[in-house]
Amino acid sequence: MKKLIVDLGERSYPIYIDENLLKDEIVKPYLNKTQKLIVTNETLYKLYKPLILSLVDQKREQLLVLRDGEEYKNQESLFEILTRLLELQFNRQALLIAFGGGVIGDLVGFAASIYQRGIDFVQIPTSLLAQVDSSVGGKTAINHPLGKNMIGSFHQPQAVLIDTALLRTLPEREYRSGLAEVVKYGFIQDKEFLAWLLTNAHDILSLKMDVIQEMIYRSCDAKRIIVHLDERESGIRATLNLGHTFGHALERAYQYRDLLHGEAVAIGIVMAAELSLLRGYLNKQERDEVIAALRALQLPTLSDRLFSAAELIEIMRLDKKNRDHTIRFVLFERIGQAIIEEVTSLDQIEQAIKVGMPV
Amino acid sequence: MKKLIVDLGERSYPIYIDENLLKDEIVKPYLNKTQKLIVTNETLYKLYKPLILSLVDQKREQLLVLRDGEEYKNQESLFEILTRLLELQFNRQALLIAFGGGVIGDLVGFAASIYQRGIDFVQIPTSLLAQVDSSVGGKTAINHPLGKNMIGSFHQPQAVLIDTALLRTLPEREYRSGLAEVVKYGFIQDKEFLAWLLTNAHDILSLKMDVIQEMIYRSCDAKRIIVHLDERESGIRATLNLGHTFGHALERAYQYRDLLHGEAVAIGIVMAAELSLLRGYLNKQERDEVIAALRALQLPTLSDRLFSAAELIEIMRLDKKNRDHTIRFVLFERIGQAIIEEVTSLDQIEQAIKVGMPV
Repeated sequence: MKKLIVDLGERSYPIYIDENLLKDEIVKPYLNKTQKLIVTNETLYKLYKPLILSLVDQKREQLLVLRDGEEYKNQESLFEILTRLLELQFNRQALLIAFGGGVIGDLVGFAASIYQRGIDFVQIPTSLLAQVDSSVGGKTAINHPLGKNMIGSFHQPQAVLIDTALLRTLPEREYRSGLAEVVKYGFIQDKEFLAWLLTNAHDILSLKMDVIQEMIYRSCDAKRIIVHLDERESGIRATLNLGHTFGHALERAYQYRDLLHGEAVAIGIVMAAELSLLRGYLNKQERDEVIAALRALQLPTLSDRLFSAAELIEIMRLDKKNRDHTIRFVLFERIGQAIIEEVTSLDQIEQAIKVGMPV
Repeated sequence: MKKLIVDLGERSYPIYIDENLLKDEIVKPYLNKTQKLIVTNETLYKLYKPLILSLVDQKREQLLVLRDGEEYKNQESLFEILTRLLELQFNRQALLIAFGGGVIGDLVGFAASIYQRGIDFVQIPTSLLAQVDSSVGGKTAINHPLGKNMIGSFHQPQAVLIDTALLRTLPEREYRSGLAEVVKYGFIQDKEFLAWLLTNAHDILSLKMDVIQEMIYRSCDAKRIIVHLDERESGIRATLNLGHTFGHALERAYQYRDLLHGEAVAIGIVMAAELSLLRGYLNKQERDEVIAALRALQLPTLSDRLFSAAELIEIMRLDKKNRDHTIRFVLFERIGQAIIEEVTSLDQIEQAIKVGMPV
């Protein structure tokens, strides 16, 4: 078992990582409340019904099963959770438990932050993406028809309980997609970790548990340090968005269907590498190294649908991180070091987008 | 002009109080943003159209006029604000301006707290209740069909701009109702202020401006000190809820119609005084003094509709402040000193409710 502490003063909390962690006595104190509601989705409930019910002491009314998919990370699901809490007559001492991937985690964290002006919640991330990224750091959100993650809050969980056994049932495509957020830590701040990932690519892709746990541990460690330094994303935390400005636009263009978040981020990282080349940070060999690293982890480097650069730029303009007439990008200053720039050259942005598009 | 600072470290902000403050140069820096949206209601817009438009530089698209009433402090209005912000393509640097009473202030503050995980907002409270209470301290919320203020956040404004000239158009009944939140400060912590209010009751009720400003100043001063000591209501701030546990239940029983918040609080204070008598804190003479003070300020001391004690108790049980099987009340330890108690005796609660009911 591995343990990390996210150090945020009063809001500090532990991250536990282990195979079959949820069956371990160590997690009990974090779930030991009379008033608790576990939220999951239909897919996970089918797979883990006995485990999920055990976490709420077999009380079915304390279980809420939502439909599965990014399109349900919305206003309706949010209010479904809030209404259930009120129907159960839960007060400020209640606990919410998110049992799921990034969608469930973001949604449940947001509900916890606004129910009676804030209650406790625990993250049980079930996807690789959630285990290495979204469950740590307290960013919560729902999507709005006019933009992804446009409505949300910062609300830290009481604990993050990472049971790596859950990865065994994760669809392979989803698992691989999560590796985009892992390799990102290497790209933005840790060249040694990047090298480790490439050395261990085969074991990672074949789900070798001890390697996976080390990978998750190092990813969470990177994330917790950044969150400690910049909880509310006024500076360095924004580097975690490498590939995300392009990636979010692409997800939107796909209407959040048929392209996973990590896949969009991987293609976005290719575009960011190209833009870093155009702006004189990377040379061609380094740009190719970035692409090769993504491929080694079996991540996509090209969109399989063609969108015009103009369309994606229009979407990026609405992104919450983009002030007025410039668009902010996280770029490679070099491999292992990120830099944030506001780019005004539409021409360069267009060229960067084109390298991620099918020919 | 009077000025106070709410001292909350990084989240500190000023409160300005003056007649025609909104026409003063001093407020300009607080409203000086390109991306801003002012939210008000139909009633206020009819009364103050030129003033309101001047605050957003005559840009009508940066004005959102909601319907007037507590029943619109809901999910739909919240998302109307959020959607407008997105339609305007506003980013994290945008400013929301709440021009209205407690409903608008709570709603706009909540929208500001969750738009792109939090943007700035300024409070321009137009009702006495908002000027002396709800605009200060950062509590935001919307109502849910299952309970008042059940969904919300703590989000401090960038400034509170109190223009006492706005009180001249406030319906007399609403103005008087706001006095419940003023006299509350006397009851819970400042007997000298209570005496001052009673001495000046005539000037207060006839809207004598210099007395009104002094009254608002002293109320905001009391509130800001409590908020400084206990921003998130883990202790002393809860004493501000004197009369509110009973009052909220009464508002709910009235279905938020035909009874103003301050009126409900005044009747709730009568019930709290009775409960304080039953629990041995006040004697009969003191209880009568409380009622006399409310009457001197022309506040109601009896509900004009009859509800059973059982019905009101059932509503209170759902209140977010009430843990498990007890109900928490703010009581008079004596006049000028509040105490919080969890009361389990249904009999005493019933007796207290009955003294506020019509015979």
